[in-house]
Amino acid sequence: MSLFLRVVPVGEAVETVRRIAPPPGREEVSLVDALHRVLAADLRADIDIPGFDRSTVDGYAVYAADTVGAGEAIPAMLRYRGRVTMGGTDPGEIAPGSCVYVPTGGALPRGADAVVMIEYCERVGDDVLVRRPVAPGENVVLRGEDFRAGEVVLERGRVLSPRDIGVAAAVGVDRVSVAAVPRIGIISTGDELVPVTASPRPGEVRDANSYLCGSFVTERGGRPIYLGIVRDDREALEAAIASALRECDAVLVSGGSSKDERDTTASVITELGEVLVHGIAISPGKPTIIGRANGRPIVGLPGHPASAFVVLVAVVDHLLAAMVQTRVSRRTTTARLTQNIPSARGREDYVRVRVEDGRATPVFGKSGLLNTLVQSAGLVRVPAGREGLEAGEEVEVILW
Amino acid sequence: MSLFLRVVPVGEAVETVRRIAPPPGREEVSLVDALHRVLAADLRADIDIPGFDRSTVDGYAVYAADTVGAGEAIPAMLRYRGRVTMGGTDPGEIAPGSCVYVPTGGALPRGADAVVMIEYCERVGDDVLVRRPVAPGENVVLRGEDFRAGEVVLERGRVLSPRDIGVAAAVGVDRVSVAAVPRIGIISTGDELVPVTASPRPGEVRDANSYLCGSFVTERGGRPIYLGIVRDDREALEAAIASALRECDAVLVSGGSSKDERDTTASVITELGEVLVHGIAISPGKPTIIGRANGRPIVGLPGHPASAFVVLVAVVDHLLAAMVQTRVSRRTTTARLTQNIPSARGREDYVRVRVEDGRATPVFGKSGLLNTLVQSAGLVRVPAGREGLEAGEEVEVILW
Repeated sequence: MSLFLRVVPVGEAVETVRRIAPPPGREEVSLVDALHRVLAADLRADIDIPGFDRSTVDGYAVYAADTVGAGEAIPAMLRYRGRVTMGGTDPGEIAPGSCVYVPTGGALPRGADAVVMIEYCERVGDDVLVRRPVAPGENVVLRGEDFRAGEVVLERGRVLSPRDIGVAAAVGVDRVSVAAVPRIGIISTGDELVPVTASPRPGEVRDANSYLCGSFVTERGGRPIYLGIVRDDREALEAAIASALRECDAVLVSGGSSKDERDTTASVITELGEVLVHGIAISPGKPTIIGRANGRPIVGLPGHPASAFVVLVAVVDHLLAAMVQTRVSRRTTTARLTQNIPSARGREDYVRVRVEDGRATPVFGKSGLLNTLVQSAGLVRVPAGREGLEAGEEVEVILW
Repeated sequence: MSLFLRVVPVGEAVETVRRIAPPPGREEVSLVDALHRVLAADLRADIDIPGFDRSTVDGYAVYAADTVGAGEAIPAMLRYRGRVTMGGTDPGEIAPGSCVYVPTGGALPRGADAVVMIEYCERVGDDVLVRRPVAPGENVVLRGEDFRAGEVVLERGRVLSPRDIGVAAAVGVDRVSVAAVPRIGIISTGDELVPVTASPRPGEVRDANSYLCGSFVTERGGRPIYLGIVRDDREALEAAIASALRECDAVLVSGGSSKDERDTTASVITELGEVLVHGIAISPGKPTIIGRANGRPIVGLPGHPASAFVVLVAVVDHLLAAMVQTRVSRRTTTARLTQNIPSARGREDYVRVRVEDGRATPVFGKSGLLNTLVQSAGLVRVPAGREGLEAGEEVEVILW
């Protein structure tokens, strides 16, 4: 058994989880079920979009040349040749000197190269008075101007937003190839843990980490497989992790808050595969373990929920993103610090903060308190190269 | 039929949708299914958390008074009285002059009031040398320090985050009362529309809005009920909206991009109930309609997807939030404008922007283009009172 005990920088831990992330499977889903899924293949337009020259306003389709010099005083007079109907498949044709009414989104008749907004026109019997000149192409979207047939519309690796899904529909995609949802095994270890439904006796605490990790995984696009509470016992833990490795793509083991327990987790991972990182220069969260067995990542998280959550945000987020071949997209905001944050050089500190009116106030107090998780809006990162941050500094807050 | 034709400011439109939002039903869900749901009732701690005085480090539980003056040169010598086991329900008791080993998270024995980190201690036979003094309470979380029994832990109206769900588990909640998911009917109107699976002929376009609106609703916590494409025909639209009102809590009708079509939608809503807003001082998105029938909100969105999406973000988002009795929480970032944005006073402009390295670049070009939706990262709002924004200004970007 050789444990890798050097404490590594956060960047190296992130690189490690990205490197060992197994490539995702693919599956095809209906477009209405594709929200927030990750595209597994480029998505192309099947035809030119729009498929025809289209008016962007309600108005009269004209030869732009016919409107040169038109104004309030001397309007251009064009012959009225009827209306284009929405959805009609033939908008017809106009000759110079004539015009046709086109509603917003309607097709331009052949010959027409611009549309004059209805506000500047007046119908008088069989004629239309045009009181303003238009340039060729004005108020028109040309065929293929949005997307050309065959053009890549959305790239592989993109997390599909509602806008993307609307655009996919426009280019004729009703089923999309996406990365399969990674199955993430969730194990909590600790002799002190009892299920959430239990009334803990003195010395016992409820298993918050399963819920914390599981819902984090769900939020980040994975499927948590809840594997329950495992006693702090080598054999029990080994059996639980080995079983998780068979049915999951990666495993999160939280707990082992004491040194003995951490050693148990590390040695079980070594038994099953290898420990790659044992200790990260991060606070809180230093005793984090990153390992691999059967080609599957295993992350050992600190036992305390508040510390575990910092590691989920700083490291595990990258693992989950890599497992669907995308990159972490974080919600952040900038804010001005209201107080100094002291820190130690050589370690990345993640400090919980409240954010109000663009000002970030550290939620100090005992790091072991759960209530800091609900009272804070996010984390301020103190880079390893800094000895702290100063009041008044503008900082980036990772909203969590 | 009396149509309300005054164009209202965006703030008034938002107030209107919040006012007419029907109150949500409630339902109970398992905690593992509660992510991003909205709490319908305050959530309280059932017992003191933690339920006992707990060590936050690996170390020795002591009487703090016994360590006064302890240092490298003259350590305090305490009698070793064994270990506290994790999960053991009785940590025992210590007398002054003695100490007990406690792992992180373990219970303090009665009598002890502080813990000395193991790094500052040395076991020598039956004694432990303590090389550093501790203050009473040091490295200890007291019973009830996190949450007191009966205390409100999470408030009604809160959108449950992974952290909240972890904390809920800690306080013994395995089922939560949440706002029922609002059912939002999605109708697209327009004679030019064909289903996404169809190959549009000239003059026809695929129905992107159903997908755009539906996935926006899903992202914001609603359940879209897809009601398909309705021809621009009074009777067909009236039948479709009336039917939607029976099975949905609110209805989004998109399309009607031409003036005639907009009038059809407005007059159908007037027939069924009342139009409250017809026209918003927003660009794009001016021809938006807000109405109500059978106590249910109906929003008529512009036909073009890019305009419709701005109205979803600026107005409908508030409706959906109000329907689950919470408030809109937006992803925003601040960035510096790279170019001037001209605007008209009296109208809120929403300009699509790219964001790179803290700089926001407007995506100008024809507003009717779909590709602006996928090329932009969000919207910059030009307030109604401004005539534009200047290059170099710091602006808030609503990330979409």
